[in-house]
This record gives sequence, structure tokens and C-alpha cells, in this order.
Amino acid sequence: MITTCVDVFVKEDCIQDFIKATEKNHRGSVSEPDNFRFDILQSNDNPCHFVLYEVYKTAEGVAAHKETAHYLEWRDTVADMMAKPRQGNKFTMLFPEA
Amino acid sequence: MITTCVDVFVKEDCIQDFIKATEKNHRGSVSEPDNFRFDILQSNDNPCHFVLYEVYKTAEGVAAHKETAHYLEWRDTVADMMAKPRQGNKFTMLFPEA
Repeated sequence: MITTCVDVFVKEDCIQDFIKATEKNHRGSVSEPDNFRFDILQSNDNPCHFVLYEVYKTAEGVAAHKETAHYLEWRDTVADMMAKPRQGNKFTMLFPEA
Repeated sequence: MITTCVDVFVKEDCIQDFIKATEKNHRGSVSEPDNFRFDILQSNDNPCHFVLYEVYKTAEGVAAHKETAHYLEWRDTVADMMAKPRQGNKFTMLFPEA
């Protein structure tokens, strides 16, 4: 399965607004048919550091996510909250198997 | 929930043996009562780079994992496969909620 770990660093005064916007994106994303995981993590060492852990069963599912209303709203809502550009790292999930 | 992302870099000639040992650890770990996720990822950019994505419902579950036979066997089996010491980063899972 196709896994993307997205590191996001937000400005300190945006933490609560970021969580609110990202919860909405989470709820929409887990309802997508090809989604397997869409976990939202906050670092214990740095509360400004979040990770979006996104797993999709297919490449089509990854592409479809980028077209959804909830993703597009999230992207625009959080753009100015970020302390630096977000970075996605790609992995293949070996276990559990699809 | 308590989330640990463990970055592991293995020697190139150990990749297949590492996957085999880690699959066994995965199967044992997901059967633990307090385990929520125990995903095994391999980087698309560097096949020597793995992430163990471990989520537990309680601190007791995290501690209990370290006492299991499958964890102890994995730890000893993979020790010499690593190119450098593994590193765990701690997060709190915000969504999904427990």
C-alpha cells in the first residue's frame, strides 16, 4: 500500500486552528473508498510539529484524494499556518498486507 | 494514543532478513491486547530505510510490548543488521480518537 508521511510545522499561535482544520480533513479522508489510514499525529517534543500518516490502497486513491473538497479546503485553510513548507515522504507498507 | 515512529537503517545485504524478522514481530505485536497499529514501512527513496509505526492505547501496553517474546527475539535478531542505531520519535495520535 502507498504510504505518505507528511511533516508539517505550524506557527505556535496556529496550533488549535490547525488541529480543527485537520480533523475535518481526517474525517473526510477516512470516508474515501481507497483510504486505509489517515492518522493525525502531534509530536511530544514539539507541539508545532504534526505528521499526517496517509495510506491508500491504490495510486488512483492517492490521486482522487487530491481532488476532494475536504483536501482542497484543508490545503487552502492551513497554507498560512505553516512555519515552513510541508514535506511528504513516500513509503510502501509491507505489513499489514492489503 | 501513544505513537512511536521508529526509523531503522539496515545494511544493504540484510534487507530481506530484516523484513522476515520484522514480519514476525508485526504478527506478534498486532495480537497484543493494547496494540492499535504496528505497521511496517519501507522507504521508496532508500530501500535500507524502514519505519516501524507503533500505536498503543495505553502506556502499560507500550511497556508490555517490550517484555514480549516476539519483541525480544526481534531486537536480538536485527541488532547486527542495523547500519546505525535505530531512533524512536514519540507522538500523540489526535485522530482517530481512541
